[in-house]
Amino acid sequence: MEICRDIASVRSWRQARQGSVAFVPTMGYLHEGHLELMREAARRADHVIVSIFVNPTQFGPGEDFESYPRDLERDAALCASVGVDAVFSPSDAEMYPPGSLTAVSVERMTDHLCGAHRPGHFDGVTTIVSKLFNIVSPDVAVFGQKDYQQLAVIRRMVRDLNFPIEIVGVPTVREEDGVAMSSRNRYLGEDDRIRARALSAGLTQAWRAWQDGERVASVLLSAVMQQVAKHPELSIDYVEAIDPDSLATLSGQITGGCVIALAVHVGPARLIDNLRLDEPLPKGLSLT
Amino acid sequence: MEICRDIASVRSWRQARQGSVAFVPTMGYLHEGHLELMREAARRADHVIVSIFVNPTQFGPGEDFESYPRDLERDAALCASVGVDAVFSPSDAEMYPPGSLTAVSVERMTDHLCGAHRPGHFDGVTTIVSKLFNIVSPDVAVFGQKDYQQLAVIRRMVRDLNFPIEIVGVPTVREEDGVAMSSRNRYLGEDDRIRARALSAGLTQAWRAWQDGERVASVLLSAVMQQVAKHPELSIDYVEAIDPDSLATLSGQITGGCVIALAVHVGPARLIDNLRLDEPLPKGLSLT
Repeated sequence: MEICRDIASVRSWRQARQGSVAFVPTMGYLHEGHLELMREAARRADHVIVSIFVNPTQFGPGEDFESYPRDLERDAALCASVGVDAVFSPSDAEMYPPGSLTAVSVERMTDHLCGAHRPGHFDGVTTIVSKLFNIVSPDVAVFGQKDYQQLAVIRRMVRDLNFPIEIVGVPTVREEDGVAMSSRNRYLGEDDRIRARALSAGLTQAWRAWQDGERVASVLLSAVMQQVAKHPELSIDYVEAIDPDSLATLSGQITGGCVIALAVHVGPARLIDNLRLDEPLPKGLSLT
Repeated sequence: MEICRDIASVRSWRQARQGSVAFVPTMGYLHEGHLELMREAARRADHVIVSIFVNPTQFGPGEDFESYPRDLERDAALCASVGVDAVFSPSDAEMYPPGSLTAVSVERMTDHLCGAHRPGHFDGVTTIVSKLFNIVSPDVAVFGQKDYQQLAVIRRMVRDLNFPIEIVGVPTVREEDGVAMSSRNRYLGEDDRIRARALSAGLTQAWRAWQDGERVASVLLSAVMQQVAKHPELSIDYVEAIDPDSLATLSGQITGGCVIALAVHVGPARLIDNLRLDEPLPKGLSLT
């Protein structure tokens, strides 16, 4: 497995490849969820390249950019273990040389949900992903459905800017107790880790209500909120019912598909999760 | 020569090409200036593709989007005459399907000069050029130096977003009397056409003053303004001394290089022109 530290080596690696290339952009500190993205990437193309870059421009002031966990050696070993061909791990200066003035932004879809609570976050995401796409020139790029808004925003950007890249979304990988895997779970103490179950438990309750025929947005949301409210230590950023494609907020009677998306502060960690209600309950969640 | 009306045909054309591709984006109604871009493109790569698209998003309300001259048949014949391999001439709907939400923008360099007088113009330019780059996947793209700010903004964008594309700037082509070639010259009546000479004449006077050792920005600018002021019918949008690379406005004593850039309303047309003072007087301008 090749480790590229600068843009020129990625371009050389890419130019030397025959066949198709799948790309998995990550911020590192990899977990089973990331590895699942890489396995999917390997099924989709002849070669897999993973980027590991904690992108400063998608963190707001006071967020966890400095403390975000980093461990390149461990990450590289994990990538190698699932057959990744190359890792791109650049410095901040390599990605943002002095005098950078260009941003890519997606309107409207980034105004609410995480966008409302993390101003500038999605501009940071779409800008770095555009840069990585231009550096790697992949045929396929693979993203997790856990970051539901991010995935939808990137699909929109790829369509709008005509990137010649197929975007693949991979279902969220969960711990045994239903908690969505996240690099930020490591911020959780033992009690917080148990309280974090309320997020997936609440989503599952909403899914059950939907199966029972419930279509009123506020009722579905309160099914989630009831679980979260059991723990006064949890603080909700948002819980919203949204259209699966446009991300438009749904209220009143829901006639089409529906995703519930949420962000909750659990102790020192801000965790996100989501669930599509009009599809079968995914692996890792149960009604018990 | 192939004429592509949709994105899919451009991609097929591109995929079938061995060797390098140079790209010339235009809004059509081609003149000798455009043809010079195409000849330069042919010198730089094995294949040349030209886009002809009057991009609605770079026109402001009340500007000349509707009336901008269009003549695809004539344009295609001109392209063929200089050995262009393919023309991409899409519809508005092909380039901007409903629901487009993504923009590419370059900060700071777009705040002044034409950016101040045409709000949103450069976002329109950088967004469409990004789309075209992703559709055409050229190795080289060729732009005219007549649109000095546009060329500098696109260079910045390409560097910032890591497009794997070399940007080439081509000197302004001028009529015999020094007037810069422009599709908008066709808006000019006979008297306006004569008055338009004041733009290049003023720039040449500033160049002469620079040769004589003058380095005070306001003095150089007044050399331009004196020529323009001879015609009370002309109305200045801006005349500025700027840094050739950063486009920063220069005032007081100038120590580095200098470009004078201007935009002037000549009858129904808003014309732009520019001249680098610290380089030899280019072809098409004279001191007489």
